[in-house]
Amino acid sequence: MTEGQEKLGKLREGMKERGIAACIIPSADPHLGENIPDHWKIISWLTGFTGSAATIVVTPSFAGLWTDSRYFIQAEEQLEGSGVGLVRPAGVQDGGYAEWLFYNLEPSCTLSVDGRLISISQLRKIEKLLEPKEILIDLESDLISDLWTGRPPMPRSAAFDHPVSFCGREREVKIAETRVFMRQMNVDYQLLTAPDDIMWLLNIRGSDLKYSPLITSFALVGEEQVLLFTEEDRIPLKLAREFDRLNIVLLPYDETEEILKGLVKGTTLLLDPATASSRVFRAVCEEARIVEEISIPARLKAIKNKAEIENLGRAMIKDGVALSRFYYWFYNSIGNIPVTEMSLADKLLEFRAGQKDFLGPSFQTIAAFNEHGALPHYSATERSDATISGEGILLIDSGGQYLDGTTDITRTIVAGNPTARQKRDFTLVLKGMISLAMAKFPVGTRGYQLDILARKYLWSEGLNYGHGTGHGVGFCLNVHEGPQSISPAASANSVIIEPGMLLSDEPALYREGEYGIRTENLILCYEDEETEHGRFLKFETMSLCLIDRMLIDRSMLVMAEIDWIDRYHMEVYEKLSPFLMPEEQEWLKDVTEPL
Amino acid sequence: MTEGQEKLGKLREGMKERGIAACIIPSADPHLGENIPDHWKIISWLTGFTGSAATIVVTPSFAGLWTDSRYFIQAEEQLEGSGVGLVRPAGVQDGGYAEWLFYNLEPSCTLSVDGRLISISQLRKIEKLLEPKEILIDLESDLISDLWTGRPPMPRSAAFDHPVSFCGREREVKIAETRVFMRQMNVDYQLLTAPDDIMWLLNIRGSDLKYSPLITSFALVGEEQVLLFTEEDRIPLKLAREFDRLNIVLLPYDETEEILKGLVKGTTLLLDPATASSRVFRAVCEEARIVEEISIPARLKAIKNKAEIENLGRAMIKDGVALSRFYYWFYNSIGNIPVTEMSLADKLLEFRAGQKDFLGPSFQTIAAFNEHGALPHYSATERSDATISGEGILLIDSGGQYLDGTTDITRTIVAGNPTARQKRDFTLVLKGMISLAMAKFPVGTRGYQLDILARKYLWSEGLNYGHGTGHGVGFCLNVHEGPQSISPAASANSVIIEPGMLLSDEPALYREGEYGIRTENLILCYEDEETEHGRFLKFETMSLCLIDRMLIDRSMLVMAEIDWIDRYHMEVYEKLSPFLMPEEQEWLKDVTEPL
Repeated sequence: MTEGQEKLGKLREGMKERGIAACIIPSADPHLGENIPDHWKIISWLTGFTGSAATIVVTPSFAGLWTDSRYFIQAEEQLEGSGVGLVRPAGVQDGGYAEWLFYNLEPSCTLSVDGRLISISQLRKIEKLLEPKEILIDLESDLISDLWTGRPPMPRSAAFDHPVSFCGREREVKIAETRVFMRQMNVDYQLLTAPDDIMWLLNIRGSDLKYSPLITSFALVGEEQVLLFTEEDRIPLKLAREFDRLNIVLLPYDETEEILKGLVKGTTLLLDPATASSRVFRAVCEEARIVEEISIPARLKAIKNKAEIENLGRAMIKDGVALSRFYYWFYNSIGNIPVTEMSLADKLLEFRAGQKDFLGPSFQTIAAFNEHGALPHYSATERSDATISGEGILLIDSGGQYLDGTTDITRTIVAGNPTARQKRDFTLVLKGMISLAMAKFPVGTRGYQLDILARKYLWSEGLNYGHGTGHGVGFCLNVHEGPQSISPAASANSVIIEPGMLLSDEPALYREGEYGIRTENLILCYEDEETEHGRFLKFETMSLCLIDRMLIDRSMLVMAEIDWIDRYHMEVYEKLSPFLMPEEQEWLKDVTEPL
Repeated sequence: MTEGQEKLGKLREGMKERGIAACIIPSADPHLGENIPDHWKIISWLTGFTGSAATIVVTPSFAGLWTDSRYFIQAEEQLEGSGVGLVRPAGVQDGGYAEWLFYNLEPSCTLSVDGRLISISQLRKIEKLLEPKEILIDLESDLISDLWTGRPPMPRSAAFDHPVSFCGREREVKIAETRVFMRQMNVDYQLLTAPDDIMWLLNIRGSDLKYSPLITSFALVGEEQVLLFTEEDRIPLKLAREFDRLNIVLLPYDETEEILKGLVKGTTLLLDPATASSRVFRAVCEEARIVEEISIPARLKAIKNKAEIENLGRAMIKDGVALSRFYYWFYNSIGNIPVTEMSLADKLLEFRAGQKDFLGPSFQTIAAFNEHGALPHYSATERSDATISGEGILLIDSGGQYLDGTTDITRTIVAGNPTARQKRDFTLVLKGMISLAMAKFPVGTRGYQLDILARKYLWSEGLNYGHGTGHGVGFCLNVHEGPQSISPAASANSVIIEPGMLLSDEPALYREGEYGIRTENLILCYEDEETEHGRFLKFETMSLCLIDRMLIDRSMLVMAEIDWIDRYHMEVYEKLSPFLMPEEQEWLKDVTEPL
């Protein structure tokens, strides 16, 4: 019996003892964000599967893992011998694990899922689907803690002040502003379940997570007080005094649910059902009238303020300098020293780490050579790590967390000589990227209206990419931040694109088994002009890094596009060269020459 | 006291007698479509206002009319002396007449609206808004019929067969197909409240309305029978026999509600809340379980079949021939004989009437010279009728109903020499029109994704137009037909664009007080190719009419656009010239020369 099968056996024993017919194990923590600490990586502990998105269902006779297609190969390898099998979807209409549960569970049985690890909105979907079978959903049982010996502890990094010189607005101003909106919405409390909302509101940061500078916490904003649920010893004295002055009260993280129950009795409370766990929701919903909407801090922090925008400009220069050094090093190393995908990621981190106020990468670097680039979320493992040699296409998607901003940039470069097809593909993607970057649009426009700008040149050739075009980006916070986005999908949540919003612009093309192309810059929305037809907005491209001219087919470009590239390259050179060595300057001058 | 004030006084007496505090008068008939017969033009009878969209609210001390901005000037003129005032919105947030009712009615009073003239979905919105005031809504009172002497009778045109050679599919096949979907959706009945759905299903047409060839009717599709609610004497014998054979049963129109109540007891019934009146809804909802969705015929008829597409091609040639003759006549008449906006419309109708199987115009022709063109829905009246003389921009939007299809086309032409600004404006609009016409996109794309293609060149210059880009078009039916559309707005109803769907492509630019530009073709979606990235669709431009080359600034066009125009003009010439006189041919050859 393998270690995995043994764990699975014990899990099933625990289920049997508690009369549980099936359990769901999501890859989530109690804040339901994208990154989770090791303490909550239950799936990896149980099965060895390390992909970032998965759900496991276990019954006495079945154990299956659902994940998305980018992880299928990895899952099959890593799950081997674990006793858990990969469940591939039966078709586009496949309803996933919830549908599996519907068809396979006996009526009136008990289904268990840790209510801390599933959002109330997700739980409702499952409840609705399973309703006809009258299945009892147990949210209280913790089937894992007793079994997991040597479980990594919860992260407990110290919080630190994020000075106003970086974030541009005093915490008391942000709190006051939040309260203004609370009054407008007639709510007594704003419950914050997403730590990045709390970090933004209180101007603090931490290092609980690998890619996002935050401390794990909940918060409850009331008219007089702000309750911050986190361990007292994580707040340094100076910050604690400041919190005291502003009536920000510390309460133990582990007692969040209990304390909430008592506090919110008979009041009205605003929460976001996408990041509020079912357990937190149940704790407050018995006592308070709930208003469900995206949080006020989430709406406010999406609009970057003047200081943030200026700081971001500086962070972009630092990031661009690191990237330029890196590419200079790369072009000089390739063919001379062995270079692999993983060593590239390390080297890039080294260059970024040399920049002032750098905190760490903003997500796991993707350095993908040739066919690996065709997997949109590939990240090299010891096993897959490819050596960059000979000819080929290299896709590098990376970003940094700086005190003065978060970056996210993708470049595709060529080793050796590109084929005509590679140049054509690259240029189609580039045309889309530029088209979105150059867009001018009236106030009120939503992301789904702009998406086609990045796709239409690909569509014209019967090509496409299977992900969105742009996501919002935090400020020294999550690299994926809502509510804004640019994608084909419209929903009740589709917000208008407003001045101050930061978004990625990242069309792509994946040639399965061959190579992947993606070019990504961050773009900032700003107010352009007011005419008889209303106010118009534009984007400013913030990211600064050369675009590989070797891959551009100039004949496919119109003058406005050539102009855009030449101007962009001039800006890249002018802003970055003062911080480069003479030989790096010379090289950058050369590779940013007009087309 | 004016005649209008007298009617209003009598209306108020009627309200007082019945204890009604306020009444709503919508411009609608019991089928809630766009065109209504004279019998239901209550607002025009009461106030003299002839605009197509308005709502009146009357209380003992107030009488106001709400309409949209295109009608403000007309309304102020026509309402003079009627006792009813125009209510202009207080701002973009203005909630219209429903909000007015909320703020002005006393709690617990009675509000009356003829339940036949308001859709259940509209009624629900009003009910929701007025809920806090506990206002009773009376749907049964008819305050008008007794007052209106000399009221035009309900239309009673005879139905006629729409042969399969035109519509491409036997009525029994359509009925069977509808029943297949009914079974899939688990409904016993499909209630049809929109007459165009019924015309399509039963392959009949009529002439009850000025612009849409239909007979006023309701229908109920069951598993065995189809009940058609209309007067028996409107169905010619041959058709009646055929109906008999197919178990299509005729029942009196006036008894629709009563008969429905009895029939649907304990069953499940599908209806569209946007076209089901509140009265019809109440009749069935007490007896049946209601499934609310767009009707099955509405979904099916949006996809034109092969015969319809071929026939439409022929209708487009006829329409193009009529238009070419008209424009030839126009260019030869202007300066020689007096030409006014209204005489243009008459002349155009004359040319269309000369075509085979022509039934009538598909909407009121817009012929708008200079500043009149800046009013998007302008239609000339005796009073406004402008003479076309000297220099200027003429916008003509018109369409025809043929047995083999419905057309809708807008051209903007110049009299004299255009200014550089007029050419620039025209070319920006044209670039947008072409961009949408040339679009290629994957299966699954929705109208809101494509809308920007028609707008982006205008947006780039800080320009825009305040209406959608494209509407669906019926086949020898309503010129505005859902569910497909191309506009910036996304909703739960946004459907994907499918092969066989016919849409308009009509970007525009309105220069207030100066001129309006709109160029509109009908485009048909078809399957283009399947690639590794899925199935891709394109549009074929169906409308055939020259685009005024005098207004094109060639220097603003890229090669692909010039190519599109030249090819289009070649097609226009080749398809239309065989049906033209030699002198018309020569002229058309000349004006369709390559750019």
